[in-house]
Formats: sequence, C-alpha cells, structure tokens
Amino acid sequence: MDYQAILNVIQKEFSPHEDMGKVAGYIPELEKVDPLKFGVYLYCQDGSSFQFGDSQEKFSIQSISKVFTLTIAKELLGRDLWKRVDVEPSGTPFNSLTELERESGVPRNPFINAGSIVVADALLTVLENPERDLLKFVRKLCGDDDIFYDESIYKSEKSHGYRNKALVNYMKSLGNIENDTEKVLEFYFYQCSLAMNCEQLSKAFMLFANEGLHFQTGEKVIDKQSVKRVNSIMQTCGFYDEAGEFSFRVGLPGKSGVGGGIVAVHPEKYAVAVWSPMLNEKGNSALGMKVLERLTTLTGFSIF
Amino acid sequence: MDYQAILNVIQKEFSPHEDMGKVAGYIPELEKVDPLKFGVYLYCQDGSSFQFGDSQEKFSIQSISKVFTLTIAKELLGRDLWKRVDVEPSGTPFNSLTELERESGVPRNPFINAGSIVVADALLTVLENPERDLLKFVRKLCGDDDIFYDESIYKSEKSHGYRNKALVNYMKSLGNIENDTEKVLEFYFYQCSLAMNCEQLSKAFMLFANEGLHFQTGEKVIDKQSVKRVNSIMQTCGFYDEAGEFSFRVGLPGKSGVGGGIVAVHPEKYAVAVWSPMLNEKGNSALGMKVLERLTTLTGFSIF
Amino acid sequence: MDYQAILNVIQKEFSPHEDMGKVAGYIPELEKVDPLKFGVYLYCQDGSSFQFGDSQEKFSIQSISKVFTLTIAKELLGRDLWKRVDVEPSGTPFNSLTELERESGVPRNPFINAGSIVVADALLTVLENPERDLLKFVRKLCGDDDIFYDESIYKSEKSHGYRNKALVNYMKSLGNIENDTEKVLEFYFYQCSLAMNCEQLSKAFMLFANEGLHFQTGEKVIDKQSVKRVNSIMQTCGFYDEAGEFSFRVGLPGKSGVGGGIVAVHPEKYAVAVWSPMLNEKGNSALGMKVLERLTTLTGFSIF
Amino acid sequence: MDYQAILNVIQKEFSPHEDMGKVAGYIPELEKVDPLKFGVYLYCQDGSSFQFGDSQEKFSIQSISKVFTLTIAKELLGRDLWKRVDVEPSGTPFNSLTELERESGVPRNPFINAGSIVVADALLTVLENPERDLLKFVRKLCGDDDIFYDESIYKSEKSHGYRNKALVNYMKSLGNIENDTEKVLEFYFYQCSLAMNCEQLSKAFMLFANEGLHFQTGEKVIDKQSVKRVNSIMQTCGFYDEAGEFSFRVGLPGKSGVGGGIVAVHPEKYAVAVWSPMLNEKGNSALGMKVLERLTTLTGFSIF
Repeated sequence: MDYQAILNVIQKEFSPHEDMGKVAGYIPELEKVDPLKFGVYLYCQDGSSFQFGDSQEKFSIQSISKVFTLTIAKELLGRDLWKRVDVEPSGTPFNSLTELERESGVPRNPFINAGSIVVADALLTVLENPERDLLKFVRKLCGDDDIFYDESIYKSEKSHGYRNKALVNYMKSLGNIENDTEKVLEFYFYQCSLAMNCEQLSKAFMLFANEGLHFQTGEKVIDKQSVKRVNSIMQTCGFYDEAGEFSFRVGLPGKSGVGGGIVAVHPEKYAVAVWSPMLNEKGNSALGMKVLERLTTLTGFSIF
Repeated sequence: MDYQAILNVIQKEFSPHEDMGKVAGYIPELEKVDPLKFGVYLYCQDGSSFQFGDSQEKFSIQSISKVFTLTIAKELLGRDLWKRVDVEPSGTPFNSLTELERESGVPRNPFINAGSIVVADALLTVLENPERDLLKFVRKLCGDDDIFYDESIYKSEKSHGYRNKALVNYMKSLGNIENDTEKVLEFYFYQCSLAMNCEQLSKAFMLFANEGLHFQTGEKVIDKQSVKRVNSIMQTCGFYDEAGEFSFRVGLPGKSGVGGGIVAVHPEKYAVAVWSPMLNEKGNSALGMKVLERLTTLTGFSIF
Repeated sequence: MDYQAILNVIQKEFSPHEDMGKVAGYIPELEKVDPLKFGVYLYCQDGSSFQFGDSQEKFSIQSISKVFTLTIAKELLGRDLWKRVDVEPSGTPFNSLTELERESGVPRNPFINAGSIVVADALLTVLENPERDLLKFVRKLCGDDDIFYDESIYKSEKSHGYRNKALVNYMKSLGNIENDTEKVLEFYFYQCSLAMNCEQLSKAFMLFANEGLHFQTGEKVIDKQSVKRVNSIMQTCGFYDEAGEFSFRVGLPGKSGVGGGIVAVHPEKYAVAVWSPMLNEKGNSALGMKVLERLTTLTGFSIF
Repeated sequence: MDYQAILNVIQKEFSPHEDMGKVAGYIPELEKVDPLKFGVYLYCQDGSSFQFGDSQEKFSIQSISKVFTLTIAKELLGRDLWKRVDVEPSGTPFNSLTELERESGVPRNPFINAGSIVVADALLTVLENPERDLLKFVRKLCGDDDIFYDESIYKSEKSHGYRNKALVNYMKSLGNIENDTEKVLEFYFYQCSLAMNCEQLSKAFMLFANEGLHFQTGEKVIDKQSVKRVNSIMQTCGFYDEAGEFSFRVGLPGKSGVGGGIVAVHPEKYAVAVWSPMLNEKGNSALGMKVLERLTTLTGFSIF
C-alpha cells in the first residue's frame, strides 16, 4: 500500500476554506486558532510514517485526552470503573444533562463530558498527582518529552466551564463524584488543555493499533483485552452525537476533539491523526471527517 | 483455527438453565417456545462449517429481519433512504417514542422499531409485492427454499402490536410514512415472523463477511461499500440499548432478535448464529451474548 | 357592573385582522373557516346576558368538549377516574408522547389529548351509546336542542388523526385503554366535532359559575365539589402549554379549542364565550386571550 | 363564619403520627426537626385571627421565601423579569434539569429552584444588599422585627447544595445568570434559611388576600395587578409536581416549603399558614395538604 501516494491525493483533493465550518467558540482561547491549519500524520505498524501539511504543529487535543485517561483508569480500577460509567452510545449531545438525569447520574459512556469527568474523579482518588502521571503516560506513549499543557487554554476553560461545573455538581448530588468538585474540574481542564501535534497523537494511538504494545520499544503497555475494549468504545461513542455517521463513513475506531483533531486506528495496521480546526455542527472537524472517509475508501479497507 | 474444538468448549461451558432470563412475553405466540433450546452454527469464508445443539431448528428471527430489509432498501433507494432514517445509535429502548418526538419523526437508526418501519414503508413504495420479494431475497442468500413466515406469530404480532401501531401513526402524522399505516405494519409484522434456523442465518449473513459476495455462488449481491455500511450500523445499533455492551464484550457487528437469535459477522472470516430464547432485561439473548463473547476470546480476534 | 358597556369598549378596541394568528391547519375542514369571525357572549348568574359580533354563529368546539366529557365521566366513575388520568399540568404540548412515556401511559391531565382519549374510553365502557348521551347532556345544559356534530369535521379528523391514533395505541400497549382503539377514536372525534355558538357555550358553562345548578331550571346537575374540581383543572390545565400564561393574564378557569373558541368562568358571577379562529403558536385563540384579559381588567375582578 | 370552631374540628380530626411522611432529608440540619410539630394560624381580612398548636414556633420557610423574592423582583424589574423566567407549570420535579435543557435555560416558572435562582440573580443585580433588603421587606410585611435567618440551616444548605450549584452553573452557561454563581447561591440559600412561624407567615401573606395592602397599616405595598399575578403563579406552580393536586383538593393559591410549611390565600378573605414537617413523596407537607383541604371543605368556599 503506497500510503504517501494516497495522502498526496487527499492533500490535492481537499484544501481547507473558511466556509467548511466554525472554529470552536465556547472558550475565547480556542477561537484564536487559524481555521486554515491542516495536517495529517499516519504511522504504520511496520514503523513507516507519512504526512503532509501542519502535522508538526501542536494544537489543543481537548476530548482526545479522554482516551488517555480512560486507558489509565481502566488499568488502575479494572471492572469497578463500569459501575460508575456505562459503555453505551448516547442519543444526545456531548454535554447534555437530560440523559444524565434519566440515568440517575451514571454517564452513558466515558467519552461524553460527564463520563470523562467521572473518570477524572476516579483517577483523583487513586493517584497522588494525576496531572503529573497523565503527562508522564502520554509522553511515554509517544516516546517524546516535548508535550505540555497549554496554560492559557486551561485558564480559559476554567473561567468559562459553567456547563462542566453543572455536570460535576449534578453527579456529586447523586453520589457519583468522590472528590471535591473544583479539584475534579481542575484535573479535567488540565487533560483537555494538553497540546500535541499529529505525529505525537498518531504515535500515542499506535497502542490501539498494535495489541497494546509500545510502537517503538514493543513493551506491553496494556493487554489485548483492554485494546479491544477501548477501541470498541471509540467505535460506538468516539464522535458524540455523530458516532454512527463516523462509523458509517469511515469504519474505524476514533476520537475527535473540539480543537479540530481526530485520531483513528486501524487495528494491526496503522494510526492516523488529522487536524483541521473548522468544526461541523456536531462539534467534529468537518475536513477531518472527509479526509478519513477518503483514506479508508482509497486504501480499500476499514474494520468492516 | 480449530473452530469445532472451540465450539465444543463453549457447549461444555454453557448449558442453558431457566434462570438465565425470560422468553419474550410481549406476544403470546413467542412465549410458547422451549426456553432451553440452544444451538450455534458457524460458517467460514472457506466453506467449512461448525455447529452444535439445536442449530437446525427454526425459530422466529424477529428483528434480525431488519438487516435483510435494510439491505434491500439500501440497494433500491441508495442515499435517499438516509433522509428518512438516521444512522446514529439510540440512547433509549428499541420502542421508545420520546427520542422520535425529539427528532421530529426521523428514527435514530434502521434497527430500532421506528426505523425498520420506515424501511418497510420505503420498500412498500418501490416494490409491488414486498413480502414475496423479501422471501425470495432471503432464500437466495441462504441457497435454501425451505424458509417461510410463521402465520401464528404473524397473527399474534398483528393483534398485539399496539406500540408499533403508535410508532407508525406518529411518524405518519409527521410526514415520514408514505403508505397506508395498516399495510406498512402488515409487511413489518411479516418480516418479523420469518422463521429460520442457525444454519440458514449464518449462511445468509456471509454476505457481510464476504465483501457482498454470495457464500456459495460467489455472485456479487451488494457492493463492498454497502457491506461496510450495514456492518457499521450493526456494530453501533444492532443491540438496542445494549449496542455498546455487545461491541465492548464481543467486538463484532451483529444483530439480535427477541426470538432469542443473534447473528454476528467477522468480516473476511465467518458468520455465526446463536439461538437461546431466554432474554436479558435489554431484550437480547442472555446466553447468546455470553457465547459470542467467549467465541471471540477463544479465537483471539475481534474486529478491534 | 355594566357588562354591555365593557363589551362595547372591547369590541371597539379589538378588531380582528389577519396577521393576529393562523387558523388551525391540521385538518383541512377547519382551515375553511373565515379568520375574521369574532363574537362574544357573556351570561350572568342573574340571568342577564350581553354579546356582540358573531356570537350566534356555530363553530367547531374541539377541545372545549373535553370539559363536557370530563364532567360526565366524573359523575359516572367518581374517584376511579383518577387512577387512569392525573390532574397535574403538563410541561409539554397538548399532543406530546414524551411525557406520556415517562409517566407509563397515565396522561398528566384530562385536557391534553391523551387524557381526553382516556376519558372517552372510560365513557365507552359505561355508556351504551356515548355519542347520544353526550349530545343529550350538552343540549340539556344549554336548554337548546339545536346542537349537532359537524360530519365534515368529523370525517376530516378521522382521516387525518394520526397523532391521536398514535396516542391511543400507545396507551393501549400500556394497558390504559379498555376498548377497541378505533371505537375510542370515533367517539373522541365525535366530541371534537360538536358545533356550538358562543351563546350556547356560555350557557352550558354556567354550570361551573353556578355551583352545579342549571342556569335556567336551577336543577342540581353536579355537586359543588365537582364544580370545584373541574374549575381547578380548567385553571391549571385548560390552555395546554399556555395554562400559566392564561391564568396569569386572565385569572379565570377556562378552556380553549383549536376551532378558536374559549370559554371562561367566574365562579358565582358569569360564564363567557369568545370566538376568533386565529390561533397563536400555542394553539389558543390569540384575540380570545386578549379579550378575556381586557374583560377581567375592566371588570376589576378575577378569582385572584 | 366561625373559623375557630372549624380549626378545633381540624385539630381534633388530624393528629400527626410518624408514618404520615418523612422529614426533609437532603440537608442534615433539616432532619433534626421534631416530625410531630403541628400548628395552624389563620388571619382574616377583618383583623381577627385563629390558631392552634405550634403556631408560634419558628421553622425553616425554605421555598415559601420564593414568593417574597418574586414579589420584590416583580416590583423592581416589571415585565423584564418574564424574559428570564416563564410562568408555566412544570411537568417535572422541582429540581429537574431536563426541562431546563429543553427550554434553553429559561426556567418554567419562578417557583421551581431554577426559576427562583434566576429571581435571586436578578435581585443581586439591582440591589446593593439583597439579604438586608429581603429581611427588611419580610419584617415589614409581618409588622414584626423578630425574624432572622437560621445560620446552621444556611451552612448546611451551602455545603450540600450540589444540585442547586448544577442549576446555576447550567443557566450561567446558557447566559441566564448575570452575577457570580457563588454569590447568587449564597443569596438563594440565605432566603431559604429564613425562619418564621405560622403567625408571621399568615400575616405576611395577607398582602395577597388584601389587594396588595398591608394587613395592619393599610399601606399599599404592591398594586392589585401584581397580587393577581403572584396568586395566579401560586395557583398553577406553588406545589412543584403536585400543583394540580393542591389546586384540585384545596382550591386556593398557595406555596409550600420542604421545612413543612404551607401558606394559602383566599383573596379578599384570609391567609392561613400550616406547619407539619412530614413530607409526602412530592416534597409537600402531607398533613398540611389535608388540613387545607378540610378547611376549604368546612368553610364551603374556595376560589372555584
């Protein structure tokens, strides 16, 4: 498979223009990003890699971080985690309170905001310094220490995160938050404000394309069963209220963030990260969705 | 892979006992089935097949039929179908009206009842005799003419189908049903009352494990793109409010029916059908779920 | 109190013009009415009466009929009725299915469609010929035999009543409908298609302004307790999703219908009927609301 | 009307016993109250008054305070208030988030928690010291300076008010809260922790039974139009999800609090306060409801 040729086709076919969507506007800091940024990085199981555009420029990974925290929490808590968060797709937007009320404070899955906040709370309970441990874990996955959180994003999230404050307090009132709500949110905003580039993201996600082994060292980070589970949750819940559409069009497990990033995984083949900050109305990168659809069409294989 | 050895392990490990769940009770005819029936049939891409138990006994396929009607409708209507039914997982039970109201009469996906009723309506519009054509299609897929609908089930459905009557009339009021509501329901109840055995089901579903080619003749029935799409919908929506759980535990696209059948597909490898009529509280075969989870664990591969 | 002077002021202040609202469009027959029709009739406890405009022209009373059927059902069934229908205001539109699903098929009150359909079903169980008995009851209340149902409205309702068909079948599926769903709807559509004029309506509603006594004969039709209860339900639930607004602006118990009629009652003082077919977006007569608000402002008394 | 004789009958008929309901348990401080406390105070327009039991003992007025803040806000903001809070009854419990989400952050009415929090926020915007001004207003209404807030209740509310924290942050995220969320909640918890006795409450509510005039001085505090409006909102929304039931059984505008108090008003006749801390499952005083129902039955008049 000549991946570079395919990426070249894609780069030629899709160039970003401003009416493709809108840069995330719910926090001022995110609005400042150049909407025309566009990059792709694809890392293969055999160690080869392919890229174009702004693949080396860091951006706010936002909800993509939910995959990292879920992975750590699953390792540390095992099955107990599923008592506090379900694994079913949600029929409502990522920050909805309605479904949470119907389900008595147990979020539908770990990728809607409420679910990831529960995961953050669970990590706060078992880790002494969750911020440090998360950063260490992500750096290790990428084999790259040049990863930091973006303080201006963090502060912007914190001073505008009323919806997330509502979610954590609501779950606290129903007994599904163990720690101080402010502390939980601080860690949650920290994870969302990690900044990474497409290369780092695709390398980190090789874990899920490589049976749980580190892409470089071959070290076993998580077991195959965990890979299966995280991939399965990405497949059914990775794109908020558009999970079915992504599964339908792209046919790969993946996760998006409102920073405009999407990472997708072809088990036993590759991990790929796309970045284009213009979002469609469901909050996923509009161009990112198209690129990945074209990629699986041109390569001729999805998981289905 | 020695599938027969694996099936033997599974048969030994799991024997049905009456407290595993409850036989479907919403129509009297379905309640009559022996709860201890248990059979598996696995058909491989290379033509080999493996089985145990009641794999030759017919049962009511119920919602599994939704995959057949979706496949036909997709071929006949193409993209137009998606204007009338979405492809997103549902956050509520299979026969809920709430979500349908929120979405103005466009069902979340073709596998909840409302969605399959829309598919039935679409087929009624384009086919002169949809019952005949559906039966012909299914028989052809299996290479077996010994497939019929069960009239007693059909009549039982028809005289107790108030919830489905509510759904079709509600969608009619919102302009998403083209034909006479009674006629639509008659066809819908007809499809649900088809009776098939595990062998027939696994052979029919080889279509989705074999890039759209007939398992026996190799004839191209649907294109690869359609296979990808139907598999993707099975993956995210095939088990009502338990789709995430199935995806998480089994890791294969599949579809269940309240008759106790489940069919699952490993693209490019096999199709497998399980039958055990005792349902868990979500309406899926309790034992069927366990068998398929064990199968993917023992074979060591899922799509993830 | 010089009611005629007040009505004259109102007639002068408010003249109907076409941009006040839209004539009910959900059935073709109702759309044919002249939107500029406008009439008021006020009947006092002392036997005096006041009117202007089209107060003698009959129109489709629609949901106003729900007060009549509720009154009969309350007399015949007593407290048992409240096991099947609640008395709480509804937070959703008059024909919503969502709330009904949340409350397991027990409608919030007898004035949303679902609730009135349950009342119709209850009457079908206890009356041999409910159509005849309803007509007899209404004629007696008005002291006027010149009241009939409008067959063209009835047929139009019947051939377009998909939403109501959905409601009755949904409740049947949950065990809250005793009779054949078609028969229940036929009676429900019959009651909605009664045609009356403002004079007849205000006289009929004197029952609720006169402690249950017939306006003319003084005969006790229902007891004071029943008057209190029906008035209370009109107060909290008489205007669909605008009950609070009506209570707030007008301050009287009342009931509206999509035919453009509104009847309101001042206990121990008067009953008043207004007709203007242009509806606001909540489905209540836009001008009717204004007229009654002005009336209670000018007379200086509401129940509050 | 011999009110004292009627109260004597009621006192004899109803004596509190512990299985009537449960004392409010959502904050520890409220749980400490003696469940068998029971008192009534009725104040008539002519200045006479009647009472029995613990009518002089203070208790936490909780949501009854919402009537006071609404009255002040209506005077200060006029119609602008209704842009931020609606006047429709709610179909869901007093602290629900679902309805709030459907209505985009505009609470259904000023008596559900969300609505009263918006009123509190509105007062924070226009008053320099809202706590002081509220206390002054209430003391003036009662002609009694012996009214204070209960600091232990206040602190208990503040340290357990996660649900209210969720509500205020959710509305802030939707732009319907102007001030700092913590400050808004502090004022809201302050108003809820006011302690008053039945005598004080009935005197304060005479405003609404006396055309807006002070019960003692005759001074005009609010105009008749405002009385009509507040009474109308009490009638349709004063008892959370049991407003219809109260209206149906009692037939008077009123307001309850989880401290076990209920105040009801008969316009132009009297105001009455009952206290019994055992709540029914809807959160209203179980015995209080019965007492008021019996009162309107024995006196023979409600507003209907």
